Amino acid sequence: MRTTTTATAWQAGSGAPVTDDTLDRIDRWWRAANYLSVGQIYLLDNPLLREPLTRDHVKPRLLGHWGTTPGLNFLYAHLNRAIAERSQSTIYVTGPGHGGPGLVASAYLDGTYSETYSDITEDEEGLTRLFRQFSFPGGIPSHVAPETPGSIHEGGELGYALSHAYGAAFDNPDLLVATVIGDGEAETGPLATSWHSNKFVNPAQDGVVLPILHLNGYKIANPTVLARISDDELEALMVGYGHKPHVFVGGFDADEPAVEVHRRFATLLDEVLDEIAEIKARAAQGDLSRPMWPMIVFRTPKGWTGPDEIDGKKTTGSWRAHQVPLASARDTEAHLHVLEQWLQSYGPSELFDATGRVDPEIRALAPQGDLRMSDNPHANGGILLKDLRLPDFREFAVDVPKPGGSISEAPRILGNYLTEVVRRNPDNFRIFGPDETASNRLQAVYEVTDKQWNAEFYGADVDEHMSRAGRVMEMLSEHQCQGWLEGYLLTGRHGLFTSYEAFIHIVDSMFNQHAKWLKVTNDIPWRRPIASLNYLLSSHVWRQDHNGFSHQDPGFIDHVVNKKAEVVRVYLPPDANTLLSTYHHCLRSRQYVNVVVSGKQPAPNFLTMEQAIAHCTRGLGIWEWAGTEVDGEEPDVVLAAAGDVPTLEVLAAADILRREVPELKVRVINVVDLMRLQDEREHPHGLSDREFDGLFTADRPVIFAYHGYPWLIHRLTYRRNGHSNIHVRGYKEEGTTTTPFDMVMLNDLDRFHLVIDVIDRVPSLGTRRAGLRQKMVDARLAARQYTRAHGDDLPEVRDWVWPDAQDLAATEQVDATVTTGGDNE
Amino acid sequence: MRTTTTATAWQAGSGAPVTDDTLDRIDRWWRAANYLSVGQIYLLDNPLLREPLTRDHVKPRLLGHWGTTPGLNFLYAHLNRAIAERSQSTIYVTGPGHGGPGLVASAYLDGTYSETYSDITEDEEGLTRLFRQFSFPGGIPSHVAPETPGSIHEGGELGYALSHAYGAAFDNPDLLVATVIGDGEAETGPLATSWHSNKFVNPAQDGVVLPILHLNGYKIANPTVLARISDDELEALMVGYGHKPHVFVGGFDADEPAVEVHRRFATLLDEVLDEIAEIKARAAQGDLSRPMWPMIVFRTPKGWTGPDEIDGKKTTGSWRAHQVPLASARDTEAHLHVLEQWLQSYGPSELFDATGRVDPEIRALAPQGDLRMSDNPHANGGILLKDLRLPDFREFAVDVPKPGGSISEAPRILGNYLTEVVRRNPDNFRIFGPDETASNRLQAVYEVTDKQWNAEFYGADVDEHMSRAGRVMEMLSEHQCQGWLEGYLLTGRHGLFTSYEAFIHIVDSMFNQHAKWLKVTNDIPWRRPIASLNYLLSSHVWRQDHNGFSHQDPGFIDHVVNKKAEVVRVYLPPDANTLLSTYHHCLRSRQYVNVVVSGKQPAPNFLTMEQAIAHCTRGLGIWEWAGTEVDGEEPDVVLAAAGDVPTLEVLAAADILRREVPELKVRVINVVDLMRLQDEREHPHGLSDREFDGLFTADRPVIFAYHGYPWLIHRLTYRRNGHSNIHVRGYKEEGTTTTPFDMVMLNDLDRFHLVIDVIDRVPSLGTRRAGLRQKMVDARLAARQYTRAHGDDLPEVRDWVWPDAQDLAATEQVDATVTTGGDNE
Repeated sequence: MRTTTTATAWQAGSGAPVTDDTLDRIDRWWRAANYLSVGQIYLLDNPLLREPLTRDHVKPRLLGHWGTTPGLNFLYAHLNRAIAERSQSTIYVTGPGHGGPGLVASAYLDGTYSETYSDITEDEEGLTRLFRQFSFPGGIPSHVAPETPGSIHEGGELGYALSHAYGAAFDNPDLLVATVIGDGEAETGPLATSWHSNKFVNPAQDGVVLPILHLNGYKIANPTVLARISDDELEALMVGYGHKPHVFVGGFDADEPAVEVHRRFATLLDEVLDEIAEIKARAAQGDLSRPMWPMIVFRTPKGWTGPDEIDGKKTTGSWRAHQVPLASARDTEAHLHVLEQWLQSYGPSELFDATGRVDPEIRALAPQGDLRMSDNPHANGGILLKDLRLPDFREFAVDVPKPGGSISEAPRILGNYLTEVVRRNPDNFRIFGPDETASNRLQAVYEVTDKQWNAEFYGADVDEHMSRAGRVMEMLSEHQCQGWLEGYLLTGRHGLFTSYEAFIHIVDSMFNQHAKWLKVTNDIPWRRPIASLNYLLSSHVWRQDHNGFSHQDPGFIDHVVNKKAEVVRVYLPPDANTLLSTYHHCLRSRQYVNVVVSGKQPAPNFLTMEQAIAHCTRGLGIWEWAGTEVDGEEPDVVLAAAGDVPTLEVLAAADILRREVPELKVRVINVVDLMRLQDEREHPHGLSDREFDGLFTADRPVIFAYHGYPWLIHRLTYRRNGHSNIHVRGYKEEGTTTTPFDMVMLNDLDRFHLVIDVIDRVPSLGTRRAGLRQKMVDARLAARQYTRAHGDDLPEVRDWVWPDAQDLAATEQVDATVTTGGDNE
Repeated sequence: MRTTTTATAWQAGSGAPVTDDTLDRIDRWWRAANYLSVGQIYLLDNPLLREPLTRDHVKPRLLGHWGTTPGLNFLYAHLNRAIAERSQSTIYVTGPGHGGPGLVASAYLDGTYSETYSDITEDEEGLTRLFRQFSFPGGIPSHVAPETPGSIHEGGELGYALSHAYGAAFDNPDLLVATVIGDGEAETGPLATSWHSNKFVNPAQDGVVLPILHLNGYKIANPTVLARISDDELEALMVGYGHKPHVFVGGFDADEPAVEVHRRFATLLDEVLDEIAEIKARAAQGDLSRPMWPMIVFRTPKGWTGPDEIDGKKTTGSWRAHQVPLASARDTEAHLHVLEQWLQSYGPSELFDATGRVDPEIRALAPQGDLRMSDNPHANGGILLKDLRLPDFREFAVDVPKPGGSISEAPRILGNYLTEVVRRNPDNFRIFGPDETASNRLQAVYEVTDKQWNAEFYGADVDEHMSRAGRVMEMLSEHQCQGWLEGYLLTGRHGLFTSYEAFIHIVDSMFNQHAKWLKVTNDIPWRRPIASLNYLLSSHVWRQDHNGFSHQDPGFIDHVVNKKAEVVRVYLPPDANTLLSTYHHCLRSRQYVNVVVSGKQPAPNFLTMEQAIAHCTRGLGIWEWAGTEVDGEEPDVVLAAAGDVPTLEVLAAADILRREVPELKVRVINVVDLMRLQDEREHPHGLSDREFDGLFTADRPVIFAYHGYPWLIHRLTYRRNGHSNIHVRGYKEEGTTTTPFDMVMLNDLDRFHLVIDVIDRVPSLGTRRAGLRQKMVDARLAARQYTRAHGDDLPEVRDWVWPDAQDLAATEQVDATVTTGGDNE
């Protein structure tokens, strides 16, 4: 079914004026699209008005948004004309995504819709179904959604149109991303900063984003800010954002014939596309400096072509046109009549033939095959997705002669691996971060690439690792990083987002939208799987020595786990080799959100690469070398850990226990893949109860040291037999401090407290209980006092080494890749 | 201790040039502040360099941020001079809040710090403690924090300086809010849109925000975007944002004497303050139109006055100055020497006397008493907080002749009450919302106030309820609404934020920061309690008929509950009278974040006002009228609900059960205050186990219908005796639909499924089980089929009425305040 049409990027236009005949065709497309949009919102039947409209033809519940739709349809029609002439591969990003009926209408007009959904045929019956399904139980959403052909951008939460668009443009040098920005959306923070994306785009290697500010003046119940500042201020704003604004005003003058409105816009659009073609031509000749990219201010009436007034109140050109202007169309004869007149005003009989098929002349306005914006493969990225060429991650392993026998900053080791990933995948893999890539220890990648930057350069003494083309994208906006990466992934590429753990909450709601997109597309056969969205959360909650209380919140994991199990994965690798193995797995996966949390401070390595692979494959497991079990006997107590700092403290506690109570049978478990804790009925990674009991026992006390808020562990293990025996230590929001061990003590996650937890829960300790408990209490107090006095942790605590590795510790404890120096925030 | 000094707002300057003597004093203040800042970052002892610096004088762990600090100190010094001359009440909002040492230094220099913290004395011993405590275990955070006198703005997550500043300025007509915006922060989305706040400020009734863009050019590891665009673009951007930019460039020319740099800035600052005075004078004469408010571009070197180079690498004027430039000061002799030279370069012996007291001439630069920016009462809002004058909420009660006997849109009833709150509190209460105040049904407030707006007006036919002064603030940015409200509350006023439930996740991380501020200030005696931050989340997850999947996420409650119990409250009032009672309580409370969720669609009222007050006072309780218990006997099953839609479905299920199995003893419980479910040890509102068992029983099946993700109920009831008997139905992310009952069916929360849950859990039903179960399965199927066929819910389901009220239902079911009409998104 899919037809590939040859694109020829960045052709200049013919220079000839657009003919009246073509302008008429544009107008007829527009009318048809508007007709189909109104029909979707209101009609249950009688789609071609072959009989007088009655209330039974009107839907009982009128849901949808009209106001933005005619503008979206107008732009779609004109873009069709221009890109068909130029054979320009183009996708259409709909910022005002609640204008869903418009995008469905356009996809129906160019034929894509019926090709995609065979029951929505090109006849009266198909039209009836097209109308009926819209915002109807069991039908399609009222917003632009994964179900909408040609979309990579869900309508709903506003603010991300431009970041998605730029994400789509990166590394797609021949792609035009026509991006409509609603003037309501333009008030959001994420959108307001995303204009600056133009400082991060490369005119040769990347595609072109054409922002079109849909200035229809109103939101739900208010005017928009940008519509109510002077023209001078608005143009200054666009210039300040680095754009050359082209202002179009249309639809306000009732005396201007439609053909003249179309002529003016067609001329303006050709001018803009020619400007882009010139910039691209200059770039092809090596001029990579940042141009003032053109953008269009599209000032037109809200609800354009709808009823001027309803019940004596101005509707078109006001906020009253935002949603369903004739809400009582089914209830009052007068409204029904207005609706019929409104529909008839588009002249459906001139647009559709007797069978209900759209006039071929109208359809011919659109380009052919996959040059149709609704059929562009970039908008169904899985079609274009290629596997990453990945190196053998085992080659980047750190040497771990004994558990705890070497020290690494785990993300730095990952950085070595990513360097090779970047090298092997020079055009479909990027790393996104809010000024934190080096802070999060991935700086090795700068050996093979740079940070892409297209604002001014000052010189090598301050502009390290920056150039006009590079694989690392850094702007101090988590929204931008997330939005760019989403756009990049949705168009069939790969990447990761590295952020401080606490600040990733900034994109909670963006994650929601993306996770839902993935979930929904899992059930849409024509949407091909895309690469997973990979987070690397470093600078985590346990090591905020610099940053204090404001940087502490491990709750992103909780937020993620609320989403459908089929699309979320959470990993807490305890050391460098497990991080390597985990991330390699993530980079190969599809259709997930992978959250990987890994501290960036020097910390002991515990597993050889071989052990790490086995451990990560299982997702969790018993660390036999750390426990004191006796073969064939149940342990007295289980010490479990998920997270790097908890793992260290659990091992230090196990060390104390083997020294103090050598006969106590301790099992040590480490959890990398948090979803393994869940029931197999809840999550595809979940353990069976039998497997779970085999690890955690059904009845022995489990002391579980967890990276985040303790409740999540209870939630995940809720159905387990031994659940009531699981005692979780985690992050409690207990103030702030500036030394690592003091931090774990504040939250009762420290080794001494874990031992106290064991003492309090293992009755067999008998009379030795009190003495050991007091010893632990004293040890905590001493550690606290030392910290308060010296501003650093007790050396024997800070430099603790797993006993088997103490001989190594004296000689070569530190991995060669670890450098000292100031920690960047 | 607190000295009130008479302010005289908006005086013009003297017009005389600033004398060399004063400029010298400014310079000495600046040097002293810089010295104290560097001292805090590095020194453990020897604070006045009375002996040669040794490594033992240097902190073992160097934590903090130098880069932004000298700029903050420079501005603070100059503002001191200018506001002292004009007796202008001023607060200082520090966008680059990681420059904590600078603000502590300034508060120490003007005397506030020692007045606030008596152990930080004004002598050498006090200086030692001042230095030592900074970023030290048990000390103060490295960021501007609640502990910092004069601050309303926590350093940490960036982006909210301007929204906090405008929030502080609203209704404080005589207050100047000097607001430093970091150029890193300026890249964030929330900051990028917050410039537009100037369209929402009234020049007469509100204070003045003076934005100062701290353009030092670098972030952690990168240049900033705004520092690397042309001057023309930057100025255009500021003009586009509605400001008149004043550009200052200083510190780059080594040949320019310090006094000349100070002279230029002092002159510029006077010019700016005179411009503001003129605008204020015009406003006083009635010109309320939006002026181009001045702002300052402050382009100076990052780490200004620090070491030019370290180890041969450019440091001052580069990103390398961001944090601790001499990270090895304790380890290498060379770095130690550089540090000593750096400290000596400020000439400490000229700044502090023999006892370590700051030179009184320096101190005299600052204004007196509470005109000191560190001591301004607006920055400790609890001092200024007045109780709201609240009406008797009972007067707004809806009539509920029998349970279910009337219907209301609950927020609309709340709107009637809020109207009176607005009327009685014309200058210290505002309502904030992202274009949703009317959509969320609070439009009654427009009877007494307007939406404040100071962009262009087009006329009454489209600009309803808008004027230059009003109590409702609407901009399509949840970040702005939250930031404005936070600033308003932190300066001692009251308000609420109404939002769609799903989109409130946009401010998850902002909520985090505010909740932490509240938590920390609970332990700071000199910080007085402020009014609670009240949310009204309407357009909730269960009624997204228009909006579909993208608007569905009830997880904000989960996010909130992760925070400390002492500062968070969550309420789910089931009807109008309970909403009134709840919100009245919230508006009187202090130091909480109150999350109130209430649907906006017409729904039955169940409780009279008297019953509602009793129910809300208890927070949860048995609805005896709904159950079929027998006195003195345990029920067979408990049906519990939290949330309005769950309450409706539980009652409908109870209705089915009393018809189908009249002998079954059903208890119906409704929960308003979610925190009551928790253990009393976990939350101050928590029930004792005894109370809990008295309600939910210790061993009977409990079917709990909950508004949000089901897991939260398990989390809250985890320690309860009967926990394993609690079966929760809640939101499951199961797709989308467009009719209300279909939505609850998709999530198995519907009445029929609740009855099935009862059948499956109550063995006493015996042989009738199978028949009733099949009946329920059939009922669901019929409901689903009807919905799919008609696009609306089955009338008998949709119009279900509690049996006792059926006689009323036929006559006057609808409360007079309910109007029909299109639902706004």
